Amino acid sequence: MSIPETPLVLDHPAMMMAWSRARRREGRTVGFVPTMGNLHAGHVSLLKRAAADNDVAVASVYVNPKQFGPGEDFAAYPRTFDSDVAACAAAGVAVVFAPRDETMYPHGFATSVDVAGLGEGLCGASRPGHFRGVATVVARLHGLVLPTRAYYGEKDYQQLRIITRLSADLGLGIEIVGMPIVREADGLAMSSRNQYLDPEERAAATCLYRALLAAQRLADKGKRPAMALEDAAAAVIESDPPAEIDYVSLVDPDTLVPMSALDEPGRLCLAVRFPHARLIDNALLLPGGIIEGAHGE
Amino acid sequence: MSIPETPLVLDHPAMMMAWSRARRREGRTVGFVPTMGNLHAGHVSLLKRAAADNDVAVASVYVNPKQFGPGEDFAAYPRTFDSDVAACAAAGVAVVFAPRDETMYPHGFATSVDVAGLGEGLCGASRPGHFRGVATVVARLHGLVLPTRAYYGEKDYQQLRIITRLSADLGLGIEIVGMPIVREADGLAMSSRNQYLDPEERAAATCLYRALLAAQRLADKGKRPAMALEDAAAAVIESDPPAEIDYVSLVDPDTLVPMSALDEPGRLCLAVRFPHARLIDNALLLPGGIIEGAHGE
Repeated sequence: MSIPETPLVLDHPAMMMAWSRARRREGRTVGFVPTMGNLHAGHVSLLKRAAADNDVAVASVYVNPKQFGPGEDFAAYPRTFDSDVAACAAAGVAVVFAPRDETMYPHGFATSVDVAGLGEGLCGASRPGHFRGVATVVARLHGLVLPTRAYYGEKDYQQLRIITRLSADLGLGIEIVGMPIVREADGLAMSSRNQYLDPEERAAATCLYRALLAAQRLADKGKRPAMALEDAAAAVIESDPPAEIDYVSLVDPDTLVPMSALDEPGRLCLAVRFPHARLIDNALLLPGGIIEGAHGE
Repeated sequence: MSIPETPLVLDHPAMMMAWSRARRREGRTVGFVPTMGNLHAGHVSLLKRAAADNDVAVASVYVNPKQFGPGEDFAAYPRTFDSDVAACAAAGVAVVFAPRDETMYPHGFATSVDVAGLGEGLCGASRPGHFRGVATVVARLHGLVLPTRAYYGEKDYQQLRIITRLSADLGLGIEIVGMPIVREADGLAMSSRNQYLDPEERAAATCLYRALLAAQRLADKGKRPAMALEDAAAAVIESDPPAEIDYVSLVDPDTLVPMSALDEPGRLCLAVRFPHARLIDNALLLPGGIIEGAHGE
C-alpha cells in the first residue's frame, strides 16, 4: 500500500476554474464530490467512487451559509479541515477546493437558483430557503469545477433529486451519480449531525432505520396503502420519546409527489427531530418486495 | 471576397453540447451570440465581433417563451430563420444553434434563475418575470454552449448587467462582452420590434434618441440633478403624442440604482410605449461631458 499523496488545496474559485479547464483541455475526466467537510464513511464512499470512475477527483469542503436557515446550526456545524484533507488523500482525491465565503459569494453576488416542485415538500416545508441555498451553491460549484460526473449521497434524497434536475436543466452535461446510504452498525445513517446527539438520543436515533424496516416488513406482506406504511413507520418513531416526527412520507422516487399506494416502487422519507439534532433517512420500498438502500456497509 | 460557408445548424442541445465540448478539448476559443432571431445590424455587429475575437463563433436563434409575459408579443415575434442563417454565414458564424421548445424546456424542466436587485427596477417593474425568463434561458444556453466569450448588445442594458452578474455568479468563467447600440440613420436604436410601428409611430420613435441627446446637451451645460436630466428627456418624448413614457431613469451603470445627481457617469434608460410596440433605449451620460453609446454607425 502506497502512502497517499497530499491533495492540492485550492481556495480561490479562479484557481479551481483554471485547474478544471486545463483538465478538460487534456481530455481527462473529472469526478467531483461537493461536501461541507467533516467527512465520514458516507462521504468516503463518494470520494472513492469519484476517484475510481474518473481520471482525477475533486472534493469541495465548504460550509455553505445560504443553505442554513435562521436558528439552524451554521455556526455549530463541525469544521474538521485537516482530517478532511487526510480523508481525501486516503480516498485518492487530487484536489480539495476549500473556498472562503468572500470568494464563494463575493460582494455583489446576486444570483439564486430554484428548482420548482421538487423543493417544496418534505424538508422544503420545514426548511424554507434551504434548497434554494443548495441549488445556488451547487450551480456555482458545478460551474467552477465543471466535472464530468458529480457524486451525491442518497441520504439527502430530496437534494439528490433536485440536483439531478438542476444539472439537466442548466445544460452543463454533468452526470449526477447517486450513491447508497452508508450506515452505522446499528443502522443509523451516517451524518455529521449524529455527533450532536446525547447518548440517550443516539440510542433512540436508530428509530429512523427501524421505522424504514417496519414499513418494509409491512410492504413485504403485501400492504400497499401509503397511510398504512407511513403509520407503521411513525409508530416506531413515536415509541422513542425523545424523537419527534417532522414528516414520514411515501413519495414517487422521481417527482417526490406523495403516493397514495405502493403500486409502484416508492421512496419512504423520514425527518425526525431530537432535542439536539434533526435527522433524515429514506429507503426505496418495493411493492410486496424488498427494501433497497437500507442495508449497512 | 469569398462566398460565406453555410453554418452547421444544430437543433438538439445534446449535439450543441458535444460540439462545444469537442472545441474545448481542442483548446479552441468559442464566441457565442444568443439571439431570438430576426437578425438586424445590431446583431450582425455582435456576430462579426464574436467571429473576429474567437477561433469559432456560435449564434443561437431561439424565441424564448419564458421571457414573454401574458399579453406580450411571443406569438407575433418575427421569425425569419432562413435569412438569419444567411446573416450568420455572412458574419462568419460556424454554428447556428436553433433548439425546439421541447428540447430547450423538456418535460420536467423545473429550474429558474433569479438575479436579485438588478432585475427589479426599470423593465423589471413593468415586465414581471421577464428577467427571470432571460436569466434562466441564458444560464441554460451558456451551459450548453460553454463559450469562451458571449456577446450582448447595450440596447438591452439592464439585461446586459444581469447577464454579467449571472455569469460571474454561476462560475462558468465566460467573459461577457457588451457591444454598443447600433442605430438607424435617424438615431432609432435597431430592434426587431421597430417593424411593429406604423409609419406615424416610426416617425415619432426617434424621440427616444432625441430625448437622450436632450439630456446630454443639458449635462454638457453642467446640469447634474437627475430629475432635471430626466425631465428634459421626458419632455421630448411627451411632445410626440403617440409615445407614452414607461420610465425615464438615470441609474448607476453598475448597480442600476437610481442616481440623484450626475456626479459620476450615469446610464440614462428609457422605455416608451407606442400603440404597436414598446421600445427601449439608453446612453451613458458623463457629468458636464459627452454622451457615449448614442451615436449611429
